[in-house]
Amino acid sequence: MLPFEFYNPTRIVFGEGKIAELDRLVPRNAKVLVLIGGGSVEKNGTLAEVRAALGTRAYSIFRGIEPNPTFETLMEAVAQVRREGIDFLLAVGGGSVLDGTKFVAAAVPWSGDPWEFMVDHGKNVKTALPVGTVLTLPATGSESNSTGVITRKSLKAKLFFASEATYPVFSILDPAKTFTLPERQVANGIVDAFVHVTEQYLTCPAGGHVQDRFSEGLLSTLMELGPRVLAEPDNLEVRANIMWAATLALNGLIGAGVPQDWGAHGIGHEITALHGIDHARSLTLVLPALLEVRFEIKRAKLAQMAERVLGIHEGTEESRARAAIFRMCTFFESMGCPTRLSACGLDAAAIPPLLRQLEAHGMTAMGEDKGQTLEVSRAILEAAL
Amino acid sequence: MLPFEFYNPTRIVFGEGKIAELDRLVPRNAKVLVLIGGGSVEKNGTLAEVRAALGTRAYSIFRGIEPNPTFETLMEAVAQVRREGIDFLLAVGGGSVLDGTKFVAAAVPWSGDPWEFMVDHGKNVKTALPVGTVLTLPATGSESNSTGVITRKSLKAKLFFASEATYPVFSILDPAKTFTLPERQVANGIVDAFVHVTEQYLTCPAGGHVQDRFSEGLLSTLMELGPRVLAEPDNLEVRANIMWAATLALNGLIGAGVPQDWGAHGIGHEITALHGIDHARSLTLVLPALLEVRFEIKRAKLAQMAERVLGIHEGTEESRARAAIFRMCTFFESMGCPTRLSACGLDAAAIPPLLRQLEAHGMTAMGEDKGQTLEVSRAILEAAL
Repeated sequence: MLPFEFYNPTRIVFGEGKIAELDRLVPRNAKVLVLIGGGSVEKNGTLAEVRAALGTRAYSIFRGIEPNPTFETLMEAVAQVRREGIDFLLAVGGGSVLDGTKFVAAAVPWSGDPWEFMVDHGKNVKTALPVGTVLTLPATGSESNSTGVITRKSLKAKLFFASEATYPVFSILDPAKTFTLPERQVANGIVDAFVHVTEQYLTCPAGGHVQDRFSEGLLSTLMELGPRVLAEPDNLEVRANIMWAATLALNGLIGAGVPQDWGAHGIGHEITALHGIDHARSLTLVLPALLEVRFEIKRAKLAQMAERVLGIHEGTEESRARAAIFRMCTFFESMGCPTRLSACGLDAAAIPPLLRQLEAHGMTAMGEDKGQTLEVSRAILEAAL
Repeated sequence: MLPFEFYNPTRIVFGEGKIAELDRLVPRNAKVLVLIGGGSVEKNGTLAEVRAALGTRAYSIFRGIEPNPTFETLMEAVAQVRREGIDFLLAVGGGSVLDGTKFVAAAVPWSGDPWEFMVDHGKNVKTALPVGTVLTLPATGSESNSTGVITRKSLKAKLFFASEATYPVFSILDPAKTFTLPERQVANGIVDAFVHVTEQYLTCPAGGHVQDRFSEGLLSTLMELGPRVLAEPDNLEVRANIMWAATLALNGLIGAGVPQDWGAHGIGHEITALHGIDHARSLTLVLPALLEVRFEIKRAKLAQMAERVLGIHEGTEESRARAAIFRMCTFFESMGCPTRLSACGLDAAAIPPLLRQLEAHGMTAMGEDKGQTLEVSRAILEAAL
């Protein structure tokens, strides 16, 4: 096990009807900005519940944070916060709204151009407005981590930042709020959470017994309940378990003390930035190919996953490891997520621009061993065609 | 899954040599009281490391917090804190020192008799001095929860309290600090952590997929590494994994959203209070008998444990469940912990006084269904003879 520091002060308030708890959780004298996305929370009644819970508190609404939230849009929210003297941000939506709200929280007290802290990934962000969240889409784990991923349209750049100052103060997770999600978003969310786990688990072996077991527990849960939620969309218990699994997939716990490999996210972000492909799908396009190209460093953990998650005990370590990749692809496809670039209309011509983007963003030595160079990323993309 | 709130702001700083981080973690102008137990940290060099890391900060030492820390001793520490104007408490030791330090933290600002907040289990504790910890004995999880268990000798009472105000601000977990522990304490610690997991897992089924998987992961880890640490006491990786597993066994995570049954602890505390038997051993005396007496409510989860943790797939649900209890007893005995009261020199005459203690402390309706009445506790103790 590696040395680590684990700190996660976000208060999770979980259960049906918990939006009413906003009255306890938001300071009574707060001046609140409620940030939302494209308006689904207005149509399905979630925003009305939030309004009711906020009661007589002063609040404004900021609408229009898009999937893959943009710097350009969020700077409008920053201006509104400064103009109106807002002192509490309440994000109501999925990972994009939450990520965007964290950016606003850090940008408001930032004295220079906030893009500065995106470029150095939040290293110098020491203060931020308090953020609360009401999560409507289990996927990114943003409700219980300090990270935000922001796209700057004008630069075609998608970068992340993180800071201890941007952990949400609280996050309300009401699984009943996920009933109205389109099936595609449900499936994408499950796949996104699944890939988050693999990126902290499918590395070189590292002796983290508990971390491995927890990761395997999350993978088992998502592989079992992913198909079930599509078959039984009205099952609250299935929804609840998926929601909690997605949070725990990226709250820092399973990655504490073990190496991590965010190489699939590295390439995936560029695919989304250049081609507008859903985030989750950008990952399923890349991850299986990455595991094939990087097979030697991944084989032991893949074989362990085959045994413990998939119940595959027969065959050599190599054959079990290959079977794990195969079964992962089957799972992704069953969730409607393609595992071949060609299925998204991309061919070999798409590769050089993606590599140029990786180079421009310094993503030239990814993976737990820094071994995913540009040449390796090229091989991964070629294997994914 | 049940609705829940999960909040745990303790910063975990994990790894060999991490005591040096005290210089970053303790405020530079703090007036510190370092609280220790019987002096082993003075003999083995841990306290010297702490002193070096505290550097020029003003600090005093409070010595002599005993196993099953007593109100009587801790009130001396409270007096010292008030006398010297201490504003930061640093616990260096195992669960007893940590529990006792949390009590001191809450008692100092308490205006009345601090036993008042023990009697109502900390419900009204709203403020406490900040506590940091340096853990030397993995067992109780006290390093990452808000609970303290305190004994009042004059009343032969062992009660718990918990408050959000008494989460440690940080806890340093250096697994190398556990090398000098006596084997009996190592074994007791593993068993204590194991029982913590069962008390949040072996209940009526509750649909917590992730909680179940995480609990099973901790049980697997402890059952695998318990015998290994006795066989390979110098293996740092084994020590590290046990330490992290014990923390996660009782930091609130695996119990969030599922029912809990603290009935074995309820009886165990009385056994320790009346007979001075080690805490962990008081639990192994009670838990198997409790699972037998309460078999009907426990059978489904016991059978699940048999399958997922012990690899027992044959037989009926009942036979798998009984096998899980049997294998648990084997595990406890392999760790040197008895599973029969008679092995500790206790016979039927010991039962009525224990029941009177339970009644006096209101422990008359324990378990996830409140079904562990005094009569059921009597049956458990009789089954444990």
